[in-house]
Amino acid sequence: MVATPTLHPRLQGPIDVRSPHVGLEHPRRLLATVPENPSALLALATRHIVSALQFDRELVTQLCRLAASIEMQPKLLHLPLTGKILITAFLEPSTRTRLSFESAWHRLGGDILSITEAATTGIAKGESLRDIAEMFSNYGDAVVLRDNNEHSVYEMLDTLRVPIINAGNGIDEHPTQALSDIYAIVKWRPQLLTDEPGDRLRIGIIGNPAKMRTVRSLLLLLSLFPHAIDEVVVVSGAGTADPFDPGQRELLEERGLRLRVERQLQHVLQTLDVVYINSIAWIGDTFERLTGDLRLTAGSAVKDGAIILHPLARGAELDVSLDDTEHNWYFSQARGATFLRMALLTCMVERVHRVADVEPPA
Amino acid sequence: MVATPTLHPRLQGPIDVRSPHVGLEHPRRLLATVPENPSALLALATRHIVSALQFDRELVTQLCRLAASIEMQPKLLHLPLTGKILITAFLEPSTRTRLSFESAWHRLGGDILSITEAATTGIAKGESLRDIAEMFSNYGDAVVLRDNNEHSVYEMLDTLRVPIINAGNGIDEHPTQALSDIYAIVKWRPQLLTDEPGDRLRIGIIGNPAKMRTVRSLLLLLSLFPHAIDEVVVVSGAGTADPFDPGQRELLEERGLRLRVERQLQHVLQTLDVVYINSIAWIGDTFERLTGDLRLTAGSAVKDGAIILHPLARGAELDVSLDDTEHNWYFSQARGATFLRMALLTCMVERVHRVADVEPPA
Amino acid sequence: MVATPTLHPRLQGPIDVRSPHVGLEHPRRLLATVPENPSALLALATRHIVSALQFDRELVTQLCRLAASIEMQPKLLHLPLTGKILITAFLEPSTRTRLSFESAWHRLGGDILSITEAATTGIAKGESLRDIAEMFSNYGDAVVLRDNNEHSVYEMLDTLRVPIINAGNGIDEHPTQALSDIYAIVKWRPQLLTDEPGDRLRIGIIGNPAKMRTVRSLLLLLSLFPHAIDEVVVVSGAGTADPFDPGQRELLEERGLRLRVERQLQHVLQTLDVVYINSIAWIGDTFERLTGDLRLTAGSAVKDGAIILHPLARGAELDVSLDDTEHNWYFSQARGATFLRMALLTCMVERVHRVADVEPPA
Repeated sequence: MVATPTLHPRLQGPIDVRSPHVGLEHPRRLLATVPENPSALLALATRHIVSALQFDRELVTQLCRLAASIEMQPKLLHLPLTGKILITAFLEPSTRTRLSFESAWHRLGGDILSITEAATTGIAKGESLRDIAEMFSNYGDAVVLRDNNEHSVYEMLDTLRVPIINAGNGIDEHPTQALSDIYAIVKWRPQLLTDEPGDRLRIGIIGNPAKMRTVRSLLLLLSLFPHAIDEVVVVSGAGTADPFDPGQRELLEERGLRLRVERQLQHVLQTLDVVYINSIAWIGDTFERLTGDLRLTAGSAVKDGAIILHPLARGAELDVSLDDTEHNWYFSQARGATFLRMALLTCMVERVHRVADVEPPA
Repeated sequence: MVATPTLHPRLQGPIDVRSPHVGLEHPRRLLATVPENPSALLALATRHIVSALQFDRELVTQLCRLAASIEMQPKLLHLPLTGKILITAFLEPSTRTRLSFESAWHRLGGDILSITEAATTGIAKGESLRDIAEMFSNYGDAVVLRDNNEHSVYEMLDTLRVPIINAGNGIDEHPTQALSDIYAIVKWRPQLLTDEPGDRLRIGIIGNPAKMRTVRSLLLLLSLFPHAIDEVVVVSGAGTADPFDPGQRELLEERGLRLRVERQLQHVLQTLDVVYINSIAWIGDTFERLTGDLRLTAGSAVKDGAIILHPLARGAELDVSLDDTEHNWYFSQARGATFLRMALLTCMVERVHRVADVEPPA
Repeated sequence: MVATPTLHPRLQGPIDVRSPHVGLEHPRRLLATVPENPSALLALATRHIVSALQFDRELVTQLCRLAASIEMQPKLLHLPLTGKILITAFLEPSTRTRLSFESAWHRLGGDILSITEAATTGIAKGESLRDIAEMFSNYGDAVVLRDNNEHSVYEMLDTLRVPIINAGNGIDEHPTQALSDIYAIVKWRPQLLTDEPGDRLRIGIIGNPAKMRTVRSLLLLLSLFPHAIDEVVVVSGAGTADPFDPGQRELLEERGLRLRVERQLQHVLQTLDVVYINSIAWIGDTFERLTGDLRLTAGSAVKDGAIILHPLARGAELDVSLDDTEHNWYFSQARGATFLRMALLTCMVERVHRVADVEPPA
């Protein structure tokens, strides 16, 4: 007689849908803390979103508030984007970011045209981006573009008649990732969005502001909240010279941000309230990872109550031993990115009046 | 004067939509034969489907019954999966299986996120499956996974919060194919699902139980119906030693199945009521086909009234000369797979109450 | 103090949605000029569309009229293809054509199964097209196929039970592109579709009728309107011998078309009312471009009021300096292709009664 093979424990009962990163407590607190002002969102109607420079404090605040209201009730009663078509053009492939946008759009009721095979069709090689933009204007109601050439999105602006979202242009910017980062921070500490933000935060950014598009966009958005931030400490590794681009640091300081550069993570880690870490810096068509000493594990001296953010996918710099600690805010950040994008997309295609109390366009 | 080119005959009139493999007679007989017990299907709500071991006889019976009711009326009046998102992650590419799931989901009213470009994005290379599962839990309501690594689906179970369907994991299992195989058999002989199945069947399986995932899952499901099966004859070619994995044969026999191994197809073909043939056995990342003598043609000594099944796509082992014979049940089997998957998916995402008479979840 | 970086001008205000190629004037004139006869469109119900030979003058006329009515009001109040599934099988990749069909289908309310990864799955290599057609008949309600093998679409006709559209089969035909070309011409000059077409047109075709599928299909459709066309001048480059296939010229002339072959573009350009130019001629699996002297720029001696058409994507043969001239009709042509395909697809899947005043099928 032979033993019946044992089913994997996860197959023996219902799926465990609980998760510390899923819940209504944080979005609810955000909604309770931040006053509603949906008319600020009308500034997004029929606008392209290419740079974090396009946002002011009130716009970021109200976008986060709308994202929180969607996170509270993601199954919308009336789908605001029914009949609308999104074109996702990932000329530089990225499954994670593509699916985040596509999930957001589908949850709003819209349909999608995906371009994932660009390399095999020559769309990115032979045809001019002006012509591609002309084509997209006929086929869809909005475009999401990722390309490792930072100029591509700007070339398309000339002929596009529908809004485009920059989902990463070379080493330049990735504004919706930065908005998602801010949303993650303010779900943890909603009073940052108010005029009385409480204790000012010390934020660490482990990465390279000159070469990481996510870091570039995030710093621009953080500079909208200087009253709430004590200091941003950039930790970019011992081997790096000045980690900023010419003019980048000066612009951020002019906008009110206090910046400091540190070589050694252990010198500052214990003082940080928010630790943002990213793995990849783009060098032309390829990338380099952070050096080995810039690495967080459950054994790292992270301050009690501090949160860790990471745009994912991760490499060795963010150890899985942190996943089950209180510092893991990166899963909440990843989850929230879809709600933030739902909020943004709804506003861009002039449907904010279907999810918030504002006048529809005339 | 030149002759006008003659249009292809199929372009000269309306499309011929008739087919011996399309019709209501067989699903209607199944519905008339099998008593309704939809509450058995509640066992599928919020469950992963990874192994054929997860099914008992009543569950398979009621799934086939629900599939038949959908086949009778595939244009559902109320779409049960409106607003639900399926993620189809074919890390090992398979257009046929992907489209079958996607067609099923769309017919139920849902939306889809497809991953067909895994090889180019590194999703299967760099990122951990635990992290991918965390991502999928945020983006979709269910996941279909195919991967040539048999462990992948199990690694994802740790962090998935939405149901996953194993659509082929290496050489291990492919449970929805096996369910479709059973559905094809019972559309032909519905009384198999009853306590009085009539004459017990002789079933031949031409293939390799150790290396073919479709065969492994099918044998497990057949072992739920030992009262209806006289014998399962495994024909795996003269060159093969024991075609079973350690413990595999013992488990099946313990569950009541009578098994026999034959080397020569011609010794048994004439005695078989059901002939199941498959072409491909996986060896690591590649596959081998059946040897040349294991081949069915219109000239083979198939018993009168017997049916031939094949999961498709086929190679030379299943000759097209059989397509227009009464033995061709493989086209009906392929067609039915979509209805079976519609039934299964509806149950898994807790919407069975929208297509059958059961209580909705509290 | 550092200067704030200046935002790109296109990011400083709302998107400019105006375009000379978008507007209601031309489709409105077409509707006013051409009498309605929607019952002619019933001839398309449950038909495959493989060759331009399948169309007569009234069918082309009414298709263009329906396309114009859709262009007037593309946001349909009742979506005629809700619940219908289109399979887009681009075994030869083409992002532009695929998206045009997919945009059309989505705007009609339908869902889509895309095959863009054919090369990696072996669907085009191993499996017979008859079996693929059997599969498609189960999964979808219509199929769009592009393949560089001209026989593929014909092989699928044997077993297909749902309508197929030939979106380019080798060097043979591309009928929906040709219909879009005609639609572009008659939006410019609607009276061509009437019995009193006014001044007869001189049409130039810069390209190779033997090797360009778009040219082959277009010539067949033009031959339906000999009463409106003075002459079609084929300019195929100095190096080309007889640019026609055996029998091709004779057939067109038998249908009433006056044809002339010119070697030098400058000999005729000034006399042409419509200039159609294409860049690519297929030679087996690869292609060759037009020779360098067959090139249009803003400096070319195009007749006042004449229009230029190009199926896009373009190469050097159509210079961007023409984009802002009155001769640019190719952007209107590209835009109209989606409306023409919306009209055609609606008729093919028997839903024309939902967009025009005809009886539904019994």
